[in-house]
Amino acid sequence: MGGGYSKGRIVLVLGEPGTGKTIFCSQFLHGGAVTKGEKGIFIGMNEPKAKFLGEMKALGMDLAALEKEGKFSYVDASDVKHIPDQAKVGRIPVGGRELGLVNLLDTIQEAVDKVKPDRIAVDSISDLIFRYPALEERRPVILDLVETLEATGATCLMTSELLSTGQDRTLQPEEYLAEGVVLLKMLRKGIRTIQVLKMRGSKMDAKPRPYVIRDNGIEVLSGEEVYE
Amino acid sequence: MGGGYSKGRIVLVLGEPGTGKTIFCSQFLHGGAVTKGEKGIFIGMNEPKAKFLGEMKALGMDLAALEKEGKFSYVDASDVKHIPDQAKVGRIPVGGRELGLVNLLDTIQEAVDKVKPDRIAVDSISDLIFRYPALEERRPVILDLVETLEATGATCLMTSELLSTGQDRTLQPEEYLAEGVVLLKMLRKGIRTIQVLKMRGSKMDAKPRPYVIRDNGIEVLSGEEVYE
Amino acid sequence: MGGGYSKGRIVLVLGEPGTGKTIFCSQFLHGGAVTKGEKGIFIGMNEPKAKFLGEMKALGMDLAALEKEGKFSYVDASDVKHIPDQAKVGRIPVGGRELGLVNLLDTIQEAVDKVKPDRIAVDSISDLIFRYPALEERRPVILDLVETLEATGATCLMTSELLSTGQDRTLQPEEYLAEGVVLLKMLRKGIRTIQVLKMRGSKMDAKPRPYVIRDNGIEVLSGEEVYE
Amino acid sequence: MGGGYSKGRIVLVLGEPGTGKTIFCSQFLHGGAVTKGEKGIFIGMNEPKAKFLGEMKALGMDLAALEKEGKFSYVDASDVKHIPDQAKVGRIPVGGRELGLVNLLDTIQEAVDKVKPDRIAVDSISDLIFRYPALEERRPVILDLVETLEATGATCLMTSELLSTGQDRTLQPEEYLAEGVVLLKMLRKGIRTIQVLKMRGSKMDAKPRPYVIRDNGIEVLSGEEVYE
Amino acid sequence: MGGGYSKGRIVLVLGEPGTGKTIFCSQFLHGGAVTKGEKGIFIGMNEPKAKFLGEMKALGMDLAALEKEGKFSYVDASDVKHIPDQAKVGRIPVGGRELGLVNLLDTIQEAVDKVKPDRIAVDSISDLIFRYPALEERRPVILDLVETLEATGATCLMTSELLSTGQDRTLQPEEYLAEGVVLLKMLRKGIRTIQVLKMRGSKMDAKPRPYVIRDNGIEVLSGEEVYE
Amino acid sequence: MGGGYSKGRIVLVLGEPGTGKTIFCSQFLHGGAVTKGEKGIFIGMNEPKAKFLGEMKALGMDLAALEKEGKFSYVDASDVKHIPDQAKVGRIPVGGRELGLVNLLDTIQEAVDKVKPDRIAVDSISDLIFRYPALEERRPVILDLVETLEATGATCLMTSELLSTGQDRTLQPEEYLAEGVVLLKMLRKGIRTIQVLKMRGSKMDAKPRPYVIRDNGIEVLSGEEVYE
Repeated sequence: MGGGYSKGRIVLVLGEPGTGKTIFCSQFLHGGAVTKGEKGIFIGMNEPKAKFLGEMKALGMDLAALEKEGKFSYVDASDVKHIPDQAKVGRIPVGGRELGLVNLLDTIQEAVDKVKPDRIAVDSISDLIFRYPALEERRPVILDLVETLEATGATCLMTSELLSTGQDRTLQPEEYLAEGVVLLKMLRKGIRTIQVLKMRGSKMDAKPRPYVIRDNGIEVLSGEEVYE
Repeated sequence: MGGGYSKGRIVLVLGEPGTGKTIFCSQFLHGGAVTKGEKGIFIGMNEPKAKFLGEMKALGMDLAALEKEGKFSYVDASDVKHIPDQAKVGRIPVGGRELGLVNLLDTIQEAVDKVKPDRIAVDSISDLIFRYPALEERRPVILDLVETLEATGATCLMTSELLSTGQDRTLQPEEYLAEGVVLLKMLRKGIRTIQVLKMRGSKMDAKPRPYVIRDNGIEVLSGEEVYE
Repeated sequence: MGGGYSKGRIVLVLGEPGTGKTIFCSQFLHGGAVTKGEKGIFIGMNEPKAKFLGEMKALGMDLAALEKEGKFSYVDASDVKHIPDQAKVGRIPVGGRELGLVNLLDTIQEAVDKVKPDRIAVDSISDLIFRYPALEERRPVILDLVETLEATGATCLMTSELLSTGQDRTLQPEEYLAEGVVLLKMLRKGIRTIQVLKMRGSKMDAKPRPYVIRDNGIEVLSGEEVYE
Repeated sequence: MGGGYSKGRIVLVLGEPGTGKTIFCSQFLHGGAVTKGEKGIFIGMNEPKAKFLGEMKALGMDLAALEKEGKFSYVDASDVKHIPDQAKVGRIPVGGRELGLVNLLDTIQEAVDKVKPDRIAVDSISDLIFRYPALEERRPVILDLVETLEATGATCLMTSELLSTGQDRTLQPEEYLAEGVVLLKMLRKGIRTIQVLKMRGSKMDAKPRPYVIRDNGIEVLSGEEVYE
Repeated sequence: MGGGYSKGRIVLVLGEPGTGKTIFCSQFLHGGAVTKGEKGIFIGMNEPKAKFLGEMKALGMDLAALEKEGKFSYVDASDVKHIPDQAKVGRIPVGGRELGLVNLLDTIQEAVDKVKPDRIAVDSISDLIFRYPALEERRPVILDLVETLEATGATCLMTSELLSTGQDRTLQPEEYLAEGVVLLKMLRKGIRTIQVLKMRGSKMDAKPRPYVIRDNGIEVLSGEEVYE
Repeated sequence: MGGGYSKGRIVLVLGEPGTGKTIFCSQFLHGGAVTKGEKGIFIGMNEPKAKFLGEMKALGMDLAALEKEGKFSYVDASDVKHIPDQAKVGRIPVGGRELGLVNLLDTIQEAVDKVKPDRIAVDSISDLIFRYPALEERRPVILDLVETLEATGATCLMTSELLSTGQDRTLQPEEYLAEGVVLLKMLRKGIRTIQVLKMRGSKMDAKPRPYVIRDNGIEVLSGEEVYE
């Protein structure tokens, strides 16, 4: 799972709680660095850097070592979650929400200018987009983010939270705005499945496949089929 | 799938993410040009021209060559997605939404006047209509678009995003306002199906049929049946 | 299907996209004219007269010929869809919605006074009622329309759009306010079914029956049963 | 079905379109008059008296004859549907909704004072209660109606419209506020069923039973069971 | 079912229409009085005292006799349903809703001070809580009621109305705020079931069990299982 | 179930009414104290201390004894439920909701400073978060709570109420913001199941397992499987 992405694509990883979205991002960056020598940035909103590195190391990915080699950077974007809804830029009151978006885009741009990455992972966009409850507001925010990522030329993953369990569900706008969509679900029986819903410009296997999280990360059981 | 449309009809292609709505449009235009010598316009909101042409070429459709022969034009309408919600025309503040609609209709009209196309594809109308969350607003917007397309005399496809997965769903207003509706879905097992829900003035096969996206585009397996 | 309606009844034809609501109306008027010599009016909101006549002729119904015999009239009510939400009557600003309703009722009355029809078809009421998103507003609008139709003494069909697919659905107010209800659905397998849900003052077969749209219009396969 | 009601009970008949709610009311009044000599009032909102009497006669119930014997009265309450949302009582603007309720209660009271009925049928309360979209408003309106009916000492039926088809549904407040509830549904296969959901103070058969509308009204096939 | 409650517990009886919530309360009070000599209060919102006593007597519970022995009291709280939404306390306008709550709590307290009951039944809390459509308002109202009941030291039942039929449902806040929850449902086939969802501090059988309402009240068929 | 938590993790226990969320918390604290000598704090919103201690003792957990040994503390946070929506801090009016959050965080911090616990249980966060009906408000409130708990360095459980029964459900924001999620459900047949949906940094068994509440607390039947 570390290779095989089309260069310059923006892929959404949409998953339920506990399906390993963060591990998925790490394998994408770690795999790219180890197998292709590609530089990666992790834009993290959920955990402090030390905790993140520790957890990934426990899964066999030594990102700290890659960081020393200049192959990996961790960018802390947890501010996005905490910016108040009302702020001031000079004397002008500015909605915290817009500031949240602008901040994140600036943070990404800065890191990109400095590192010139081949791969970027944003984990997760939910903290940003949940600020915009109305669909007509949420859609352009996602679009701005997607286009900023696209302009970097890097291959990008962004994770997002699934709004409901079950097979029949409301489609989320980020599924339409990303160029690829990977869906991570937890079936009733406790089996996790991965399904590539969309991958523009690639032929793909769209069957849901079971996977397990092992000592060395996510392993897809690609020969097996699983339906509910 | 490149032929067989009734002249002057407005057909909606309604599909889930990853079901090939854009490929569907290209095959419609490419097929018309190659088999009937018909001129086509692609009104694109989602991708830069170069990316679009590259992806379609990878699927065996050399639209750039057709463009040189005067059989194909690409019209960039991605502005529609970015017009702010408040704008000014002279000194008069104008809702960005109305401007978005007017802009798109003008863009279509201009291209039509210049090219006199036999076929038009609009991919997709979702960026326009998601700005109108209330049904009583969305309906007349779609109507304006449909009537503008109708007035061109060309055979037209327009794509739109499905709001939810599953067999039982809320019907979307564009399904009633278009003269034909083609539904593209992804079944749970990762199988894609195409179903002609409506085609005014044509006898039609309304059974859902499986299809695959191959090296040379979408291929419908019309002898096979698939139910869930 | 051209005969057999109780004189003076208001019947609602409620159907999914592509189920032939317009054909249903035409057969009602054509059948009445041909088999009983009854005069009919078609109040059309969806298509220009020429397109409508052409499509129906292709299905074997020569309404233009009936028009010359004084047995058929086409009334263009497409204005209803385009009246702006705010208008002025003299110096008094009037909500476009009320004007839409008043206009339609006037249009119907005028045509009735002139033609004295035995049968009326209104295709469709959706463009009118979607302007009233709140149920407490929509209900009296439908009621006004039903009572205007009732006062003409003619047998009337009005078509409306179904809000969702599937067997379990929210009931729509027009189903309660009309005296008869015919439901046209598209099953998952692409089979269309017709079901007479309600027909005040008639014994009826309430089983859903499959039907096909053939060269000569809708044909109900009344000996067959179809369940999902 | 004409007998067997507990004296002084308020029973709700809740049904889908076309399930014969009006016939149900007529049989209740006709049966009471014929078999027990009880006087009945029909409070009608949906149809002119003549149409109603004609339809019921076609089903074998000669209510006009009973009217001459002083055993039946028809009270026209169709005004309730048409009272505008804003009205004036003297110089005081009064919400049309409150007026609608007050009018109906007055109409009932007047008729009761004059006729001293043993049975009352109100067909239907939906035109009244749909004016109150919020549950917290709708509930007290239904309560006022129920208590007015209760105070008459007569046995009462009131009909109401079911909001959705299907087995799993949102319960409606009138189901809790009435003392008995009879549910009339149309199964997918076109079979109608009657089910006594609630009957305070009576032992009851709560199984859904199929019924048919025959030449002489509703006939319950009480020996048969029907499930979906 | 008359015994076996943990002293001082607040148990919610949540049920569909016609499932016998009122009978359930009566058996709780009657059983306590007859088998343990405990004093009970019935706080009634739905029916006049005479009607209630009559119905319960028909089911073999002579509450009037218990009343003479000082073992039973009926408290009429039907006012709660009728207090207008705006009232005045002295010169201060007070929302009717708050007054409704305060009134009920006062009524309960007064009765408790006078009777010193061992058991209290409140039938039902729905008339109170439906006034608060927003969950964030409804929750503290239920909490105030629960704590008032808790402070009496008596064992308490309160009934509430289920919002929807079907197995999968939205949980209601009173289910979380009560210490025990008994669910009364009507299956599709007309079979009633009782299920103890929650009973803090007790081991319990959580299986749904069928029950019947017989001449002598509710009888649980505890050896039988019923699933749908 | 008393051991086996990763140090410093924040785990959400999400459960239906009657599934033993409070017992779960007690076993977590009691088990830690007895088997590892760890100090625990219980932040309780639902019950007075005495009642809580009594119930847990009945299940074989003598928390009062542990309290004397300095291994257990009970912190009463029931105030959170009662703070009015409008309050004043000095002369400044402060929204009660913000005060509720600030109060709870202060209460936790104070107790932590005093006791220096290894384990903390918050039972439940629902009383806090139900005050924030909008998702965009609720999310940051949960985040503030999670980060306060995280900063203590203790291993933490927090309980929350499930919003609906059934397998297909809307995911709740606390499921994404906690590092581990344990789901407690009641199947239709009255069987309770526990499922570890998420546990960051641990390999886990994600199968739902049946459990029973016995004389000595919750016992998971981990060899058994249960599906619906």
